[in-house]
Amino acid sequence: MEGSGLKGHLREGLRFLEEAREFKESFEARLSPLRELSPSKPFTYLSVGGGELGDLVVSAAKRLLGGPKGGIRTVVFDRYDGCPAQDVADSFEGFDMMKGDLLEARVRKYIPNPSESHAIYLEIEKIDTRRMCELGIRYGYRVMSTPYGPLICMDRHLTKLMFDELKVPRLEWAYAESQREIELIAEGFGLPVIVKPIMTSSGHGTSIVRTQEDLKKAYRYALEHARGIGDRVIVERFLEDLKTKGTEITQFVVRHFDDEGEIITSVLPPVEHRRPGATYHESWMPSTISRKAIERCQESAKKIAELIGGLGLYAVEQFVIGDEVYNNEVANRPHDTGMVTRWTLNADEGAIQLLSTIGLQVTPFDISPSRPNVFGVAHVILAPDFEGESEGGAERAVLGWMAKDVKDFMARKGYSGDVWYFGKPTAYPHRRMGLAVAFHEKLEEARREAEEIAHYAEGKIIYS
Amino acid sequence: MEGSGLKGHLREGLRFLEEAREFKESFEARLSPLRELSPSKPFTYLSVGGGELGDLVVSAAKRLLGGPKGGIRTVVFDRYDGCPAQDVADSFEGFDMMKGDLLEARVRKYIPNPSESHAIYLEIEKIDTRRMCELGIRYGYRVMSTPYGPLICMDRHLTKLMFDELKVPRLEWAYAESQREIELIAEGFGLPVIVKPIMTSSGHGTSIVRTQEDLKKAYRYALEHARGIGDRVIVERFLEDLKTKGTEITQFVVRHFDDEGEIITSVLPPVEHRRPGATYHESWMPSTISRKAIERCQESAKKIAELIGGLGLYAVEQFVIGDEVYNNEVANRPHDTGMVTRWTLNADEGAIQLLSTIGLQVTPFDISPSRPNVFGVAHVILAPDFEGESEGGAERAVLGWMAKDVKDFMARKGYSGDVWYFGKPTAYPHRRMGLAVAFHEKLEEARREAEEIAHYAEGKIIYS
Repeated sequence: MEGSGLKGHLREGLRFLEEAREFKESFEARLSPLRELSPSKPFTYLSVGGGELGDLVVSAAKRLLGGPKGGIRTVVFDRYDGCPAQDVADSFEGFDMMKGDLLEARVRKYIPNPSESHAIYLEIEKIDTRRMCELGIRYGYRVMSTPYGPLICMDRHLTKLMFDELKVPRLEWAYAESQREIELIAEGFGLPVIVKPIMTSSGHGTSIVRTQEDLKKAYRYALEHARGIGDRVIVERFLEDLKTKGTEITQFVVRHFDDEGEIITSVLPPVEHRRPGATYHESWMPSTISRKAIERCQESAKKIAELIGGLGLYAVEQFVIGDEVYNNEVANRPHDTGMVTRWTLNADEGAIQLLSTIGLQVTPFDISPSRPNVFGVAHVILAPDFEGESEGGAERAVLGWMAKDVKDFMARKGYSGDVWYFGKPTAYPHRRMGLAVAFHEKLEEARREAEEIAHYAEGKIIYS
Repeated sequence: MEGSGLKGHLREGLRFLEEAREFKESFEARLSPLRELSPSKPFTYLSVGGGELGDLVVSAAKRLLGGPKGGIRTVVFDRYDGCPAQDVADSFEGFDMMKGDLLEARVRKYIPNPSESHAIYLEIEKIDTRRMCELGIRYGYRVMSTPYGPLICMDRHLTKLMFDELKVPRLEWAYAESQREIELIAEGFGLPVIVKPIMTSSGHGTSIVRTQEDLKKAYRYALEHARGIGDRVIVERFLEDLKTKGTEITQFVVRHFDDEGEIITSVLPPVEHRRPGATYHESWMPSTISRKAIERCQESAKKIAELIGGLGLYAVEQFVIGDEVYNNEVANRPHDTGMVTRWTLNADEGAIQLLSTIGLQVTPFDISPSRPNVFGVAHVILAPDFEGESEGGAERAVLGWMAKDVKDFMARKGYSGDVWYFGKPTAYPHRRMGLAVAFHEKLEEARREAEEIAHYAEGKIIYS
């Protein structure tokens, strides 16, 4: 909406991006390649959030670098005991990470002096992100990729301003502060529209509004599910052709030191994905988009990563229709859709995040396909809706799972498939409990099989 | 040597094999598929030995099954603090595992009741193996593959008797109890001969005797390096053509439950390897041997595994010349040469050992090549000889390693390569510190590159 509010936010946003850019220079000047890993003075790797993505990063520290005796110790924070990364980490702290003072105190407990060698990976958004970023900006904590990164990427408005600054293509959008404003914008764009809170990630609070009925609930829904704060939302024009002719891509790029000690941006092959709702559902490699589209995806993602800077993975969510690419959202870290890299790249996204953010080289081999001749598809294994309970419903304990039935199913069907069970102690409706994977020379077969394994596995987890 | 000593040992050996076979029946009757993994009553997986092979098994429990909250808790024993598997395991105990009472007490600490669901993996030989096997035979502890397995496989005499019982091809051999007897046998076979202690594994104490000079030291060498007890050695006729026309294979097979609840034996593709000495040096997949030789390797290995029985991996070391196969030694567990499976099979040998021994299915996909179109070669990264110190020389502390140089080297060379640094806290001469891996469509290129990476990495570890 035009108006002084927007102009004020715009000015504020542009100033913030300028600040981020200035900070990037000084931040990168302080970064250096990691020459030696030493067990007597280990590098501290802190994953704030210990879900399945944190698990991949922590596991990589053990599997590639030898863990603490190899010179790297891993610390995991999460809100609950028994998170996936906990049983692999060297230290764990369970507490409410939305409480900034608590969070800061725990960071300082493990990294008393920010000039010691360390890196901090913000795995999730349900933390006091501002406080974490402040620790980076004010005190020199190495919050990766840069301490400004999460502040830009979590903010849909700043993200869009950044796209415009970089002149990379994006969806048409407008900005609203009330239900009334949303309705006006929707009238202009025509339904459907996408409504999302300004501060969010992983699709939380996002809805596709198709009817006037839904439109009435859009504002409240967005704010209720927002992972950040504030009362502002973004309204996007819906790409009509997306469902029928288009697809979705996560384009990963990684900022890392090369062998000359310079920070460079390397480009990964695109990950393609589909989702019936707003959250991650299935993804695969290699992608099926055109060579031209791949180039455009990679070009945009590279520009974005180079603007924000620092070290580590960037995951840029993009819509692709034919050769056209629309940048949508950015995460400056590993991404749900990238878990498939555990089976499809030589180094998975956790290993790539680890290597790059501690100051090592990521080799062209690391980011190349490990199985170039087949499609590898990952499909989420979800908890049920527990008889219609909403996502905020009571947690159920996980009593167990019937691993043998799942393995037997894959063997009986003759599928080239695999299952990663996360081992979460509790579940709420539709919580992600694991990942099913299938490989096939034909994408549609691989998708069908991964889905079938996932659905079978869903029936084999026992809840209280 | 003919004589009452040998006849006595022969009788004793045959009786032991008969006992093993009878025990197998009752042992297998007590095994059952693992229907459910439950975090409130977790399955206990004990790795007696926490080296790099133990690390693969423990990691698999986390990476596939979700660790303790997925219903499986891992316990690692080793003689020293900081072993590779320790930082991934849920519990660790460091003590002298050659002390049977201590060993038994620790086993009972974690598995008070042998009827609880558990499995025990004897990762190394430098433990009181007899006591461990006794715990299985007398008290029902699930020492895998069967409690008799290690007793047969560590004993070169029993192994050869078993080969003869199964009518699988083997080297010509004789049996000696003194230096004088070795010399008589060598006269009969002609030099070179191979001399090895009866009780050993991983090539420890084995020597290839090429000269009369060496022959004089053979008996003492074998007994000094034996990992078991006793004063008996085996003398084998050397296969003259092996170096020039032959190769070495480790043929893995795995005993596991199928989807009908029956224990079956599945066959893996052969691993090929070379060694300048008696211990593991480099290995690769796929192997280059003939189809006929592969069939014979697999046929022998299957027979051996089915005779000893139980659940888990069997690694049969074989010499192959043309289509001819000579069975050499057997390990009823994962094997050094099989570490390459981490990069070449869909499930690595640790995962296969875990899945099979806890009572899950191993699928055809698990044991199929993940990269069928390239050779993957693993080459050991060794500690230096520390200016001529012998293997028993004083341990040196590992001060650190220059991981970035190693990654940079691979990137600069443009190699498709990877490094697994084990993170051992100390080193003695020629201790295995890590593994370098390279992939290439041409085997000789892949071997050269893996070796080059390994040698480069060897220069990048810093010792006290």
